[in-house]
Amino acid sequence: MSVEQFDVVDLIRAKRDGGELSCEEINWVVDAYTRGYVVPEQMSALTMAIFLNGMGRREIRDLTLAMIASGETMSFAGLGKRTVDKHSTGGVGDKITLPLMPLVAAFGVAVPQLSGRGLGHTGGTLDKLESIPGWRAELTSAQMYAQLRDVGGVICAAGATLAPADKKLYALRDITGTVEAIPLIASSIMSKKIAEGTESLVLDVKFGSGAFITDINRSRELAQTMVQLGADAGVTTSALLTDMSVPLGRAIGNANEVRESVEVLAGGGPADVVELTVALAREMLTLAGQPDVDVAAALADGRAMDVWRRSILAQGGDPDAALPVARETHTVLAESSGYVTGVAALPFGVGAWRLGAGRARPGDAVQHAAGIDVHVKPGDEVRVGQPLYTLSADEPARFERALAAVAGALTVGSERPPTRQLVAERVSA
Amino acid sequence: MSVEQFDVVDLIRAKRDGGELSCEEINWVVDAYTRGYVVPEQMSALTMAIFLNGMGRREIRDLTLAMIASGETMSFAGLGKRTVDKHSTGGVGDKITLPLMPLVAAFGVAVPQLSGRGLGHTGGTLDKLESIPGWRAELTSAQMYAQLRDVGGVICAAGATLAPADKKLYALRDITGTVEAIPLIASSIMSKKIAEGTESLVLDVKFGSGAFITDINRSRELAQTMVQLGADAGVTTSALLTDMSVPLGRAIGNANEVRESVEVLAGGGPADVVELTVALAREMLTLAGQPDVDVAAALADGRAMDVWRRSILAQGGDPDAALPVARETHTVLAESSGYVTGVAALPFGVGAWRLGAGRARPGDAVQHAAGIDVHVKPGDEVRVGQPLYTLSADEPARFERALAAVAGALTVGSERPPTRQLVAERVSA
Repeated sequence: MSVEQFDVVDLIRAKRDGGELSCEEINWVVDAYTRGYVVPEQMSALTMAIFLNGMGRREIRDLTLAMIASGETMSFAGLGKRTVDKHSTGGVGDKITLPLMPLVAAFGVAVPQLSGRGLGHTGGTLDKLESIPGWRAELTSAQMYAQLRDVGGVICAAGATLAPADKKLYALRDITGTVEAIPLIASSIMSKKIAEGTESLVLDVKFGSGAFITDINRSRELAQTMVQLGADAGVTTSALLTDMSVPLGRAIGNANEVRESVEVLAGGGPADVVELTVALAREMLTLAGQPDVDVAAALADGRAMDVWRRSILAQGGDPDAALPVARETHTVLAESSGYVTGVAALPFGVGAWRLGAGRARPGDAVQHAAGIDVHVKPGDEVRVGQPLYTLSADEPARFERALAAVAGALTVGSERPPTRQLVAERVSA
Repeated sequence: MSVEQFDVVDLIRAKRDGGELSCEEINWVVDAYTRGYVVPEQMSALTMAIFLNGMGRREIRDLTLAMIASGETMSFAGLGKRTVDKHSTGGVGDKITLPLMPLVAAFGVAVPQLSGRGLGHTGGTLDKLESIPGWRAELTSAQMYAQLRDVGGVICAAGATLAPADKKLYALRDITGTVEAIPLIASSIMSKKIAEGTESLVLDVKFGSGAFITDINRSRELAQTMVQLGADAGVTTSALLTDMSVPLGRAIGNANEVRESVEVLAGGGPADVVELTVALAREMLTLAGQPDVDVAAALADGRAMDVWRRSILAQGGDPDAALPVARETHTVLAESSGYVTGVAALPFGVGAWRLGAGRARPGDAVQHAAGIDVHVKPGDEVRVGQPLYTLSADEPARFERALAAVAGALTVGSERPPTRQLVAERVSA
């Protein structure tokens, strides 16, 4: 492609004025931006114009394909197994990938979970697993392939060669206020997943106050867009719309989320984490041709735990090692008796982040033992003096700002709130 | 101001979502961008959000004042004369500043014309004057002040210290497709003019196919916005809305436009150039307290020419020197007889630019002898074989692309077209 094939200012103006970009124009601008001929300030203006004026289905598909074409693609065709992956749009306390991968792999399906690190208040799956002594996220393609063959599932870092245009564009969107647009979110997620080479894909699209996109109607639109993108690219895709207004499980952080995941794999754990893990596993196994298996049984009888232990060992980790524990904890007690009427996800996410569980900038280290454990759920009855949540940190100086973040986020009232539905809808092609 | 007072991503999001920015936020972001704390890709996203979601009157005023505050301001209070300046939003063949400055200064009013160089198809006043051997655009403040006192008028380059935030922002807008937004155009023009210290200001706001903003209603809105900004800052401002669908005068280029301007100063020249020069001079002299003088007389009797000659001499130029002449010319003849029904400004502007009269990038040199002379006007009767326009260039290889630009731009038909009104409206506070 010639760098002078198009004039980027003409393309920006076209999108600014509500026009459509052709396939050739989209391919050109993604390639020229990846190579540095289109400069960041130009891509930023184009991205804001896309944010405000939208993109049609055809443009979103072309953008996704152009980002895939910017790098390498993988294939698991030689494994002789069905492959299925899961992607979550991110939430507070969302550790579902940890119990889900071994649970699905226990049914003989290959689960290649290329994951990322966290930025801001939503945690990253790799950050959580790195609290296990010895565990390593970086695998070569050959190691990943071997683990899928021998263990059945793998959670590892996505290589830099998959959709590099998306990596560059995502970093730009992050600092220019253009993250929350459906065409940009959809193409970003799907370019990575399609390039990864999975046969089928289940999306956990969040809505509610702790999600990226809070409104369920916009979450549905995002889910539909991604399901269609998957179908167009030959990846069987479906989505669950799930409520992210309350933190998932009790644990928000890193080591404490691993601990909670292991409880689920041992047949216990918080009801909401088990419910969502089983719902997503059922969806993934349906796409992989096993719609009728008893998913929950594999948690109860240790089959999922067995895959978990083998996968941790395969990546250098010790599944029996003690997880890091914070030097300081601070527990907040109930000041009145009644029912828990709400536990707002976003403030607890921000609180855990301020305790050191998350990073402010790419490349920062996270503190694996930092985080929050919320001991109650909406609808629970509490008495004065009962522990509501516990903050953990290595540096006690962090408590003040974390407490300010969570102030008022957990409410107690006299009436039991209505029951919340965790999985609200299913979206398929 | 602390660089950490605001989070730029919050400001971008606010404008993106249709909100208003406070005075403090606007001051902060302009200052932080000037200092480099807010990076170009962030300013670019904010600018596109302003382009698409607009700005209220109060925000535009705050933006203008913030850009003025980014640099130094001038004052001509010690001159003991009224001061009045003119600004045109730019057009094809628009050399009006050249005869206008001496004409107004001939009435004892100081005319400080800080001007710029051209980019793209609209020419720059300084580029035109630099075709006069020896003439220099760069003056110190003291030289400028002395010339205003001794000669009465000066056309020179705006110093880098006036509204540097605007210079930086304009360069960004130019490469990111965000030039044509009213809040951004208005604040850019008015920040420079207010910082310059003129007492009053007349704006020539163009509309029609050869103007930046083609629609007269949007041009009126731009004019009203700038007139209000001037009034708020204590600069008496009015505007004429003028038709830019046909090139002004015959000459489009640099040396040829100086030649035509000298004809006007000698009491001749094309009727439209004379008409607009006199109309703007009348408006400027009205603001400067001389509403009833006979403006045209000063062209006829040589008073304006006298100021012109002295101003050229004061800036090192020789008013009697021969102007550069192109090595090659190519004349296009009428292929049919009839009336000229249209001469489209934009294609002729692009044609002259391709001949070398304009620059593609800031810093490029212009070819002073290159350009186009259009020998006819809409309504003129022509016969087969009569010259319609002449292209001039130093490099004959440039003719082909210039001829492609102007192809079809001059039309001949059997009916005389309706008469066009050059000055359509006046806008004042």
